Amino acid sequence: MSFDRLIEAIQRKRTVAVMGLDPKLESIPGFIKEGRTAADALFEFNKSLIDCSADLIAAVKPQSAFYEIYGHRGIAALEKTIKYAKQAGLYVILDAKRGDIGSTAEAYAQAHLGSGSAGADCITVNPYLGYDGVKPFIDVARREDKALFILVKTSNRSSAEFQDVLAGDKTVYRLVAEKVEAWGAADIGEHGFSRCGAVIGATYPRQLAELREAMPHTFFLIPGYGAQGGTSSDAAYAFKNGSGAVVNSSRGLIYAYMNKGNPLKFNDYTRAAVIEMNEAFAYLFNNNA
Amino acid sequence: MSFDRLIEAIQRKRTVAVMGLDPKLESIPGFIKEGRTAADALFEFNKSLIDCSADLIAAVKPQSAFYEIYGHRGIAALEKTIKYAKQAGLYVILDAKRGDIGSTAEAYAQAHLGSGSAGADCITVNPYLGYDGVKPFIDVARREDKALFILVKTSNRSSAEFQDVLAGDKTVYRLVAEKVEAWGAADIGEHGFSRCGAVIGATYPRQLAELREAMPHTFFLIPGYGAQGGTSSDAAYAFKNGSGAVVNSSRGLIYAYMNKGNPLKFNDYTRAAVIEMNEAFAYLFNNNA
Repeated sequence: MSFDRLIEAIQRKRTVAVMGLDPKLESIPGFIKEGRTAADALFEFNKSLIDCSADLIAAVKPQSAFYEIYGHRGIAALEKTIKYAKQAGLYVILDAKRGDIGSTAEAYAQAHLGSGSAGADCITVNPYLGYDGVKPFIDVARREDKALFILVKTSNRSSAEFQDVLAGDKTVYRLVAEKVEAWGAADIGEHGFSRCGAVIGATYPRQLAELREAMPHTFFLIPGYGAQGGTSSDAAYAFKNGSGAVVNSSRGLIYAYMNKGNPLKFNDYTRAAVIEMNEAFAYLFNNNA
Repeated sequence: MSFDRLIEAIQRKRTVAVMGLDPKLESIPGFIKEGRTAADALFEFNKSLIDCSADLIAAVKPQSAFYEIYGHRGIAALEKTIKYAKQAGLYVILDAKRGDIGSTAEAYAQAHLGSGSAGADCITVNPYLGYDGVKPFIDVARREDKALFILVKTSNRSSAEFQDVLAGDKTVYRLVAEKVEAWGAADIGEHGFSRCGAVIGATYPRQLAELREAMPHTFFLIPGYGAQGGTSSDAAYAFKNGSGAVVNSSRGLIYAYMNKGNPLKFNDYTRAAVIEMNEAFAYLFNNNA
């Protein structure tokens, strides 16, 4: 099942790295933009990033917002990016953080995981609307053998504002976590994880440890590594016996060339940054070698 | 400012109706689909809906999910719909329920309210990530004279799951409500409302009453009327002195023709349904006539 494919890629390539494809036009090397529309430049940039790193990363995570900026042309670039990444054998996590009531959630699930969609393996989902806003994603994921990552404890500074609110003796993120673990329970893959993953920021290592314990069958997507300040020691709490999570880095990988050297060789810098990230997580694979 | 324009339309047209543009291909009359791509059929359907009701409604609310289903072509239809509605003099609320961390929220705000966007007046936003996920929307809204509606208490059945959790003596939705009121406080329009509106379902009249009291400067978007079961008496709690909210109806208006009569005249049924909805809310205008 869906996360089994991701886990097998992790084991085969010995990497938990997810490359966040968040292309900002102003940060794309000039030579790529020359003679291209904005949307074409986004795709061309992504293509090079995928080419230079596909053998070293477990997945890519395009961030929908950065394509929506360019309207329908940007969405076409996102669709091409998803297809290109799939052809390169990569697992694709669409970071769209959708969430709506039942009938609309159904439309979102169909739009991004359905048979007529661009073909992402997985989508991020916001839980604020409760189970009937999440269930349509679970249903489509089951039908199409896909998966989701539900926001539990996000990496940003003000995630505490509502997620850390104490309800009795439990935080709201803990309540969400327990529901996510329960929602996934009926459908566990070979490697012991359900289709309902969770997003938990590397910037909150204490919560990572708490939730790894509370969510034994939930696979984690860890943002906040690198540019946002999370380290590989922080992220370590997401793993048990070397498994249980993937770690995203966006700016740290795709803009590795900035302030460093020749933009024409941006992909060499990216490849080097991926290798460095993999070395930081090598401890996960040494015991299982 | 943005909501002042909406409120002036409400007063001028004597209506609080928002038409939800949630076109589902299988529910669009056959003659509209004939010889058209799916995306073109969505736009053509919306165009007729706008033509037959623009003088009787305060706003339209396209629901992004129903366009995302058709990929970049669907988004092009959404963009055309927004522009067409603006030309018809309508206020446009893009129901996209976006929400992400700071830098990505900035990209979403730019994508949908920014100067290069299709031109919606307003967007719905999910608060689960806290203030730094909402602030970029507020900033762009201020710069472009636009507005947002933040999810507070949604109309769906399982909205209770996290939104009604008790934290001390307050529910989570109440905590969100107080923040929304505070986030808007610095920037109040002529009619007494801030740029930070709130989404509160007509299906929860008790909470509507509570929040109308707690959020005196917050304009409400009320979903859940009609097909979802909310009535005009339920929605009455959203208003004070006849003002303070707009009420959305999607299926009840755009599919009014179904099981009733000639699909060729679907727009007559829609217009009649809008008139019926306006009559149900006529009580708001009788005192202020």
